[in-house]
Amino acid sequence: MLISCVAYQNGRKLADIPVEDISEYVGRPDCFVWVALFQPTHEELDQMAEEFGLHELAVEDARKGHQRPKIEEYGDSLFAVLHPVEMEKAEDGTESLMLGEVDIFVGPNYILSVRHRTKLGFAAVRTRTEREPDLLRHGAGFVFYALIDNVVDRYFPVLDDLETRLEAAEEHMFAAPASRKQIEQLYALKGMLMTLKHAVSPLMESVGKLYGGRVPQLCQGTQDYFRDVYDHLARINAAIESSREMLTTAIQVNLALIGISDNEVTKRLAAYGALITVPTLVAGIYGMNFHNMPELDWSFGYPLAIAVMFVIDGLLFLRFRKVKWI
Amino acid sequence: MLISCVAYQNGRKLADIPVEDISEYVGRPDCFVWVALFQPTHEELDQMAEEFGLHELAVEDARKGHQRPKIEEYGDSLFAVLHPVEMEKAEDGTESLMLGEVDIFVGPNYILSVRHRTKLGFAAVRTRTEREPDLLRHGAGFVFYALIDNVVDRYFPVLDDLETRLEAAEEHMFAAPASRKQIEQLYALKGMLMTLKHAVSPLMESVGKLYGGRVPQLCQGTQDYFRDVYDHLARINAAIESSREMLTTAIQVNLALIGISDNEVTKRLAAYGALITVPTLVAGIYGMNFHNMPELDWSFGYPLAIAVMFVIDGLLFLRFRKVKWI
Amino acid sequence: MLISCVAYQNGRKLADIPVEDISEYVGRPDCFVWVALFQPTHEELDQMAEEFGLHELAVEDARKGHQRPKIEEYGDSLFAVLHPVEMEKAEDGTESLMLGEVDIFVGPNYILSVRHRTKLGFAAVRTRTEREPDLLRHGAGFVFYALIDNVVDRYFPVLDDLETRLEAAEEHMFAAPASRKQIEQLYALKGMLMTLKHAVSPLMESVGKLYGGRVPQLCQGTQDYFRDVYDHLARINAAIESSREMLTTAIQVNLALIGISDNEVTKRLAAYGALITVPTLVAGIYGMNFHNMPELDWSFGYPLAIAVMFVIDGLLFLRFRKVKWI
Amino acid sequence: MLISCVAYQNGRKLADIPVEDISEYVGRPDCFVWVALFQPTHEELDQMAEEFGLHELAVEDARKGHQRPKIEEYGDSLFAVLHPVEMEKAEDGTESLMLGEVDIFVGPNYILSVRHRTKLGFAAVRTRTEREPDLLRHGAGFVFYALIDNVVDRYFPVLDDLETRLEAAEEHMFAAPASRKQIEQLYALKGMLMTLKHAVSPLMESVGKLYGGRVPQLCQGTQDYFRDVYDHLARINAAIESSREMLTTAIQVNLALIGISDNEVTKRLAAYGALITVPTLVAGIYGMNFHNMPELDWSFGYPLAIAVMFVIDGLLFLRFRKVKWI
Amino acid sequence: MLISCVAYQNGRKLADIPVEDISEYVGRPDCFVWVALFQPTHEELDQMAEEFGLHELAVEDARKGHQRPKIEEYGDSLFAVLHPVEMEKAEDGTESLMLGEVDIFVGPNYILSVRHRTKLGFAAVRTRTEREPDLLRHGAGFVFYALIDNVVDRYFPVLDDLETRLEAAEEHMFAAPASRKQIEQLYALKGMLMTLKHAVSPLMESVGKLYGGRVPQLCQGTQDYFRDVYDHLARINAAIESSREMLTTAIQVNLALIGISDNEVTKRLAAYGALITVPTLVAGIYGMNFHNMPELDWSFGYPLAIAVMFVIDGLLFLRFRKVKWI
Repeated sequence: MLISCVAYQNGRKLADIPVEDISEYVGRPDCFVWVALFQPTHEELDQMAEEFGLHELAVEDARKGHQRPKIEEYGDSLFAVLHPVEMEKAEDGTESLMLGEVDIFVGPNYILSVRHRTKLGFAAVRTRTEREPDLLRHGAGFVFYALIDNVVDRYFPVLDDLETRLEAAEEHMFAAPASRKQIEQLYALKGMLMTLKHAVSPLMESVGKLYGGRVPQLCQGTQDYFRDVYDHLARINAAIESSREMLTTAIQVNLALIGISDNEVTKRLAAYGALITVPTLVAGIYGMNFHNMPELDWSFGYPLAIAVMFVIDGLLFLRFRKVKWI
Repeated sequence: MLISCVAYQNGRKLADIPVEDISEYVGRPDCFVWVALFQPTHEELDQMAEEFGLHELAVEDARKGHQRPKIEEYGDSLFAVLHPVEMEKAEDGTESLMLGEVDIFVGPNYILSVRHRTKLGFAAVRTRTEREPDLLRHGAGFVFYALIDNVVDRYFPVLDDLETRLEAAEEHMFAAPASRKQIEQLYALKGMLMTLKHAVSPLMESVGKLYGGRVPQLCQGTQDYFRDVYDHLARINAAIESSREMLTTAIQVNLALIGISDNEVTKRLAAYGALITVPTLVAGIYGMNFHNMPELDWSFGYPLAIAVMFVIDGLLFLRFRKVKWI
Repeated sequence: MLISCVAYQNGRKLADIPVEDISEYVGRPDCFVWVALFQPTHEELDQMAEEFGLHELAVEDARKGHQRPKIEEYGDSLFAVLHPVEMEKAEDGTESLMLGEVDIFVGPNYILSVRHRTKLGFAAVRTRTEREPDLLRHGAGFVFYALIDNVVDRYFPVLDDLETRLEAAEEHMFAAPASRKQIEQLYALKGMLMTLKHAVSPLMESVGKLYGGRVPQLCQGTQDYFRDVYDHLARINAAIESSREMLTTAIQVNLALIGISDNEVTKRLAAYGALITVPTLVAGIYGMNFHNMPELDWSFGYPLAIAVMFVIDGLLFLRFRKVKWI
Repeated sequence: MLISCVAYQNGRKLADIPVEDISEYVGRPDCFVWVALFQPTHEELDQMAEEFGLHELAVEDARKGHQRPKIEEYGDSLFAVLHPVEMEKAEDGTESLMLGEVDIFVGPNYILSVRHRTKLGFAAVRTRTEREPDLLRHGAGFVFYALIDNVVDRYFPVLDDLETRLEAAEEHMFAAPASRKQIEQLYALKGMLMTLKHAVSPLMESVGKLYGGRVPQLCQGTQDYFRDVYDHLARINAAIESSREMLTTAIQVNLALIGISDNEVTKRLAAYGALITVPTLVAGIYGMNFHNMPELDWSFGYPLAIAVMFVIDGLLFLRFRKVKWI
Repeated sequence: MLISCVAYQNGRKLADIPVEDISEYVGRPDCFVWVALFQPTHEELDQMAEEFGLHELAVEDARKGHQRPKIEEYGDSLFAVLHPVEMEKAEDGTESLMLGEVDIFVGPNYILSVRHRTKLGFAAVRTRTEREPDLLRHGAGFVFYALIDNVVDRYFPVLDDLETRLEAAEEHMFAAPASRKQIEQLYALKGMLMTLKHAVSPLMESVGKLYGGRVPQLCQGTQDYFRDVYDHLARINAAIESSREMLTTAIQVNLALIGISDNEVTKRLAAYGALITVPTLVAGIYGMNFHNMPELDWSFGYPLAIAVMFVIDGLLFLRFRKVKWI
């Protein structure tokens, strides 16, 4: 689906143009065309490939989707795959991370973005860049930066969400009795961290090549901006690594605490059991059939026996309490 | 066994040629010979080595098999070892990963593929390339790419299969009671992931050298294609790493859950045991031989004692239920 | 909040100057301006950006805070983010690591430091550098070093504190019975180590670029000093890694020891239980109703039975003691 | 002990020569001397050092032994330390890995091999190279390759042996009840893998420098051969890594399974215990001394009570079977 | 404390000289001064700094101590920090690793060594070097090597000691019942290995720069010697890594074995308990008050009942033995 197709000149919007005229505008050196697609059909992509002269392999990647994040050079143009990530709430209340895909084709005077499986669009980017014609005049490189920056900025709330969950789980871990439910949550959290990591870490590597060493022609003059994006990615990446390590420990600790909880109950039941076997023994003794058992003839023998049972158990109970067996 | 031996000219099939004429066709600068062998005999390989002028060490490697994946330069020709991987179902229903081997010798105008222990051939590759004479005209480098791409594409269904198994095991893990069977499956899954990794990861490293840095003469002009293959391998590799990490955690969690299950049963048996010891104590008390035990003379003493037993156990049972000991 | 704004000439303090005059002093080649801000307002930062001609992205980073430690070049000036770390005691006695932030802008003849969320200022640095006009004459590079050195020096007491806690926990681990409380402390300690690591390790990487390879113009002549700082950071980093590894093992050992403690109690209770079941059996035997049981008629039968119970239990008790079951 | 001392000319054996004549033959440009020693005395090594003009440090290393595998350049000669590995069966049937040591001194026209603690000699290498005068004509570099290749080839059966043990242990793990013996075997296996790794992995690194980058003069013209050796080492190394990872998991799984086995027995004993406490309770009830217990007067009361005990236990038994508690 | 201060000329000892004359001797191109200090006072170090013209930062490091091992260039001189390690026996018999510190300043014709917290001196180095004037003539570089070599050689016995402890623990682990004491020892051993590693591994890195790449002027001509030291360090480092990995596994195995031991006792107690409950049931049955229980009237009823108890328990005992529950 075509979202928009706009031509710019000298940093100012010229007009919404029909798709067929793209190649014409791209041909003018002072013009700049910006097209946004959402889950395009086969034909739409083919038309774009023709109008912009895109490389066959890049188009194939965009068509099939499910690439890993990357930024590749094809001659003097670039092809980028980004993975925006959203927390999505299912109808039954469970939340999961949705991995979208954004493919970006950038040439000296055009930019084409293709979104898959993500609800979040780039209207905000367009508004922001149109507000700053000075920067937009830098052309495709700057818009490219603005798009990546937008995707990366959306990682932060997701990361914050995951970190909050981890912290909640950590507090829970030592406060409440450990449960299987928690393990399941921590395990799911680990899966989400891995998803986020796989979106962030290859992108970081790729962006790193846009400001240091041999920088592609398109990004020259905007290296400082790409370094800034790189820095954000590095921060997210470090935070993920850190959370992952804490999470691994948390799972281990939680599992051990569940085992410990169960053992504690078994221990307490064993202690309570002991409290019952002792009067049983007393009862057994006075159930013996010896002829010569003077206590049996005492008139207060029976209540005394019961009293003895209570006293012994009372003392044992206090003792067990003291050594924390009950 | 010779599968096929074909000569091409300007991207078009010329003819099936006899093995003895290979060296003659290879000698013509505008010709290109493509030979496919399946588990060749000692003599067949020797003949090929002579016709194509292959390097002794490469031939030795192809003869012995069991190499690790690699791509090596011998002068202006290349020698590649690939490990195709197939999921194979044994007669008793158990499935295991089969590791095949494909050795490819590539020279400026010939390509020789040798398959071992794999049922999957390259007929599809031949059909595809013959349909595109423009690309076939690029010669050996392009056919070489098409062969590698074909092997790599076959990794995806295997990876998907393994990931599906992991997900099934993960769902099972928290849904059903943990069992030894699951551990065995997860352990086997880990072994399969390792097998796949050892097929993918050295190949990725080798393919990486075909598009960046000093590219072999044969692959020049097709670097973008090899980068695309590299990218697929990198994606598979990242997915394997990710699965491996989740798997390690899953095994750990599963083992702990089994232990926890057993402890829970012991805990419940201990609680049920307690429910039995209490009436046993009551019975013991009324089995005592004191002369002065008024309850014994009551006409409703016996049913009352039984009732007391039931009431106490009922209360205990409710209590245990509440604290989740039963 | 403006803390101070001072101009220097030839390594000597010239005067406290008003903010508006900064650009004028910065313009004089033999002058050097040093400004310190604490949690500045939006307007204060804007004014500084204008007076010093700071780069938009760096100012944006300083405004938003929450960057990761880094040192970046913007033309011939540098922008550094440092994370000072303090141990802070809450009112309820629990201690936690507070992560502050210090942003430093350095140009050929100015230095601007911006502190966030940290109580510790740089008065000491100013005093030290003013005492040594020879070094201050080196200009911005040397002051830059002095500021970083000051932040890094403050990591050592924090590291010592964490190491002391670890050692205390280690001694405790084998001396006292293992407890959940300890696990909680070790887990919190791990979190603190991670915090410290994230302050130290990216900074180390960045400082490493100030003395080896292509050194920024500003730091030339003071490389030996930056190497010294790097060395301190490397030492802290190695100590953190080492503590982290010991900590992981300590948590594992501690968890296992708790499980072992509980099992030991269960074992002892089982042994005590055995001590009670034996006389219960004896009592049960003499509670049998056989007509022909000679012991029942013995006048000393009852005390003998009791004695037998004591003797058997005494022997069992000694035996259990010996094999360490009780 | 001197094993052999032979001079070659143009790839053909000239004669067995006395040690004193070595320096003379080495002096002739078309000659090539090959000496093999086995655990030489101090004097033998000194004589060799003099005849060949060996470097003091290399001789010192060969004398002391216990070096790690390495290949070092001393001017235009090379000094290599290899660690052949053999599986050795002790008299009591236990097997362990024996680490031998082979030191090789190579110069432009000599090769000196010194064996320590290994029964396997290089007679096969000598036979093989003498059969191929064409290759032997390449001189020292080729013989050097042949010696390394021989040592590396001997790693394969050891690796196979270890892998077979691991597989046997894996099958055992899930088939038979887990036992301490298995842990011990797996632990010993891990030790052997580490030994093999320490023989292979530094050597791999060293051989890697003989075919890529700046290749020593001696190995020029034979790089393809050294790359082949490197490849074998890389394969062994990858297999070791893989086995090590599976082994770590296997130990973990095995330990957990032992714990689980014991818990299962405890669980079953608890269940059997429950089967006994129930009839004990019934017996207790009919042992009560109430006057008014009609069942006691029934003539079939006793057999009925016994029957009730059996029925209850029978039902319980079936129930426990069903939920897998017994 | 000044240990010695000697001037050399052409590899021969000239004289013990007073500290004040050092600068004079250092000034003569054919002279070479070698000074050794032990825990010097502030003033002694200042004097040395003046006589030799040492760099402020290096002197500061030597004064404060507690650096990590490193070798730094200051112009044409070097500053090295080494960490000798000794096993020290406390009065109560516990042994711990003591970390000393040796700082070495080396210039073209002087060498100054400063020892802290270590009893071992360098007299042996002095004797060795003085015996070989040929080598001593190489000047400071060679003495520098000899000092480092001496410190590194002392790591070997410490490493051997630690490895012996590990092996002893490994044998113990499977032979004797696992105990907490062992865990404590293994944990302490891990701490010692970490200490040794932190002494060895940064030094290895630093020494690696003295023979490959851009070698400092001072070390030229002695690269082969430094490579030899590097090699020793690499060997120690690899051995430490290997021990560390085995140790981690050993701790894990040991902890699991302790838990297993306790569970085994619980299991055995449960089995013994079962042996007692069975005759208790029999006794309970014959304690029932049914009127019609023919066995009660048999004259041999009582001994028969006892016999039945013994027989059942005997059979159970044999059965439990067989399935290894007792």
